[in-house]
Amino acid sequence: MKIFFLVSLLFLLFSFSSAKKTKFPSPVNIQAESIFHQSTKTNLYETKYFTQILDHFNYHPQSYQTFQERYLINNKFWGGAEKNAPIFVYTGNEGDIEWFTQNTGFMFEIAPQFKALLVFLEHRYYGKSIPFGGDKEIAYSNSTTLGYLSSTQALADYATLIIDLKKNLTAQDSPVVVFGGSYGGMLAAWFRLKYPHVAIGALASSAPILGFQGIVSPYSFSNIITQDFKGVSENCYKVIKESWKLIEETEEQHGGLDLLKKSFKICDSKPVEGWLQTAFVYTAMTDYPTPSNFLNPLPAYPIRQMCKAIDDPTTGNDTFAKLYGAANIYYNSSGTATCFNLSDHSDPHGLSMWTWQACTEMILPTDGNDEKSIFPSSEYNFADRATFCKEYLGVEPRPNWATTEFGGMDIMRVLKRFGSNMIFFNGLRDPWSGGGVLKSISKSIVAIVAKQGAHHVDLRFSDKEDPKWLQDVRKKEIHIIHKWIDQYYHDLSEDLSYNGI
Amino acid sequence: MKIFFLVSLLFLLFSFSSAKKTKFPSPVNIQAESIFHQSTKTNLYETKYFTQILDHFNYHPQSYQTFQERYLINNKFWGGAEKNAPIFVYTGNEGDIEWFTQNTGFMFEIAPQFKALLVFLEHRYYGKSIPFGGDKEIAYSNSTTLGYLSSTQALADYATLIIDLKKNLTAQDSPVVVFGGSYGGMLAAWFRLKYPHVAIGALASSAPILGFQGIVSPYSFSNIITQDFKGVSENCYKVIKESWKLIEETEEQHGGLDLLKKSFKICDSKPVEGWLQTAFVYTAMTDYPTPSNFLNPLPAYPIRQMCKAIDDPTTGNDTFAKLYGAANIYYNSSGTATCFNLSDHSDPHGLSMWTWQACTEMILPTDGNDEKSIFPSSEYNFADRATFCKEYLGVEPRPNWATTEFGGMDIMRVLKRFGSNMIFFNGLRDPWSGGGVLKSISKSIVAIVAKQGAHHVDLRFSDKEDPKWLQDVRKKEIHIIHKWIDQYYHDLSEDLSYNGI
Repeated sequence: MKIFFLVSLLFLLFSFSSAKKTKFPSPVNIQAESIFHQSTKTNLYETKYFTQILDHFNYHPQSYQTFQERYLINNKFWGGAEKNAPIFVYTGNEGDIEWFTQNTGFMFEIAPQFKALLVFLEHRYYGKSIPFGGDKEIAYSNSTTLGYLSSTQALADYATLIIDLKKNLTAQDSPVVVFGGSYGGMLAAWFRLKYPHVAIGALASSAPILGFQGIVSPYSFSNIITQDFKGVSENCYKVIKESWKLIEETEEQHGGLDLLKKSFKICDSKPVEGWLQTAFVYTAMTDYPTPSNFLNPLPAYPIRQMCKAIDDPTTGNDTFAKLYGAANIYYNSSGTATCFNLSDHSDPHGLSMWTWQACTEMILPTDGNDEKSIFPSSEYNFADRATFCKEYLGVEPRPNWATTEFGGMDIMRVLKRFGSNMIFFNGLRDPWSGGGVLKSISKSIVAIVAKQGAHHVDLRFSDKEDPKWLQDVRKKEIHIIHKWIDQYYHDLSEDLSYNGI
Repeated sequence: MKIFFLVSLLFLLFSFSSAKKTKFPSPVNIQAESIFHQSTKTNLYETKYFTQILDHFNYHPQSYQTFQERYLINNKFWGGAEKNAPIFVYTGNEGDIEWFTQNTGFMFEIAPQFKALLVFLEHRYYGKSIPFGGDKEIAYSNSTTLGYLSSTQALADYATLIIDLKKNLTAQDSPVVVFGGSYGGMLAAWFRLKYPHVAIGALASSAPILGFQGIVSPYSFSNIITQDFKGVSENCYKVIKESWKLIEETEEQHGGLDLLKKSFKICDSKPVEGWLQTAFVYTAMTDYPTPSNFLNPLPAYPIRQMCKAIDDPTTGNDTFAKLYGAANIYYNSSGTATCFNLSDHSDPHGLSMWTWQACTEMILPTDGNDEKSIFPSSEYNFADRATFCKEYLGVEPRPNWATTEFGGMDIMRVLKRFGSNMIFFNGLRDPWSGGGVLKSISKSIVAIVAKQGAHHVDLRFSDKEDPKWLQDVRKKEIHIIHKWIDQYYHDLSEDLSYNGI
């Protein structure tokens, strides 16, 4: 089981980000184009590049190297600089910014009423924002070239780019609001905290800023997934929970691997546990109320569909047939797959370098499983991760750095007296919500919690089938953002210019 | 005049920090030991070292190198961890931390009433906190080794050290208040802004956080010095103002250099302008109401003494004799100097590396002189500094970085809605006050301004001769810090622990 857990450690590191060693996409080709993108033939955005400095914090000769940082911009709705119309900025995550942009319809939908300029910033080392001349072969090759991949550098990139962009647009007085989901949400929250002079507020959706080692329980992630399935069907939970032992026993039996291969229609010969776990974890994350295509194409409320397959009386006691039915929901929505290639670790959204971040500063323990877990019980073990990171990437994690730099401990006490204008959205079905801010901290640092919500569901394009709670969440967010901007304009109209005494 | 201004550019870069090329100490040996230190034979502090990481923001193999960061600690007054007694931390400046500690008597004097632990942190690359094995020869040798000298790295050092220290003392719930003067005050302010989870408040004394290019006028520095002298005596101002032309003309005359050498008792043969400017600038900065020995030994209100010498009727129209008398106040308090060695650029407080900081990120223009300036009129010219930095240190300044990282533009508007618990003290006789925060921003971001005050006078040891305004400033500071700590204990007593929902 050792290898399996080492792999699962990584694959659980952060959402859909486990690419290289751990992603198990189905033969159904995951298109980078989302449903939205397919349905609109107009251009959502223009693509631009900004010459970014490689190292903001040091002054070595090599610190001055530059790279091209991609950003996407839409000025269709903008009220213009002369009106100090707002600028909404998405602080890009660990992947291709186009993909996140296409899955952040909320910003496009609210831009008209705010007359906002939309800007989506790509995170260094992802997508087309690759240092060392844009050459991934070089940039990803070793810890010397990868060494500049860090969240603090990315935040400094964003500050630098936004300030320059505003200057070029003569829009210095336009208020900036930052948005982000998942790691992008963490960056949005941190950006407001670290660069209040650049952004007047932040909507941080499904941002596990408390998910770090030492703050929340390492069991919270799996506990939420467990509850997601249990809440739908106690039997569904039990079947999955008990299946791991059966799979393990089968693997050890003569002919067992062939049986598994046949049962799960595996084209190659790889263990199925990780493949199944991926399906359960990602489905829990994206248990959206309407059909979606974020990680994989999925029906509305996909966990219900998975449990329907598992609870299906026609499969009787055939656990593998039940699991296969559940896996099909995640991996085979079109029903056209003939077999699954578990060795195919393709990475359509360019997420692979999250492994580096999870091996350096993003020490978000997610792999603890207590006795009640839907997954085999296991202890969170930092040493295992450290060993893996050393062997695989030649880098040593800094488990205390994120909380040193960004805080998180005693957050209620610290931010009660400091900071303002932040929204933390969390959907409680999302396993990452365990590391989210679930309580409002002050009048203007507000938690919005949706019991039925999944991973940054609020940021997705609206759908006419959206449930009322989701419509209400978005209304509330819009209302709060309006308040920030109104207050900003009020302050701007007062003479708060600084001119000594 | 070109060379002269290039030199003066550096010497005016930051207070007493221009050492290498520009400091002109008198033959009176400036002891690192202050008056206070000489007068107390007891130990003020214990010296300790912390193993600090070289590069907090990147993950190259060399980022993981460590160095020994010095800190001084005094636990004589501390109420202890079990009582959550406070920790007062001085965020060290650009020099030997012992020197700053000895000139920050305020912390020692208030520690008993707060039952505070005192900690003084040394800034990387200064004093004994030298990377690369503590070897200055290596650390200072080129831009590759000096590259890690930056304010963001120093702030991260402080956060890392404080968190570790509190953990080792089991004092996680002890509130930390940071103190600093001058650049150390900038660091204290920035530390509260960037690490609110580490420090509950900051006393930033004479911290020119608005002194950066593009915020305040580059003339403000010299205007304040001008006003300092003018306020004492219009004649004194005029004599100094008109002297530069006379000196220049004399230099150009046959035998003029000899005349100057004789008039000013110069041992070697160097131009006197920089030497005189240094005296006027540093005396303005340290125009304290009682005798002091910070930069040089000085009488109470030394500008008055300088002007007294200049206005002295016994020297008639002899401008050089008048200037010599003024220079003597700064350079020759003991009256024992027989001649002055202008080539002696000794650096008793280890300030030389400020030149690096002023050549990278600390672009604080101070060398603009308008028509009314007491110094020869001159324009601030960034290009000149950039050229000098490139030639002298092989490094390119980043003039926009400090305001990108730390803000400053529109500070009233930004911090009105963000942040808390900061005191900005400024004395208006201090030329650095032009870049200080001189207006209160919110209820808890407070400016204390003393018309008669000089450079971080509030942080100095009290003296029985201290004027009432200075006693009042300190009382006010103490009162505010008490409020912060009381509020913190109140919050601590409430259950603000975070445990999800």
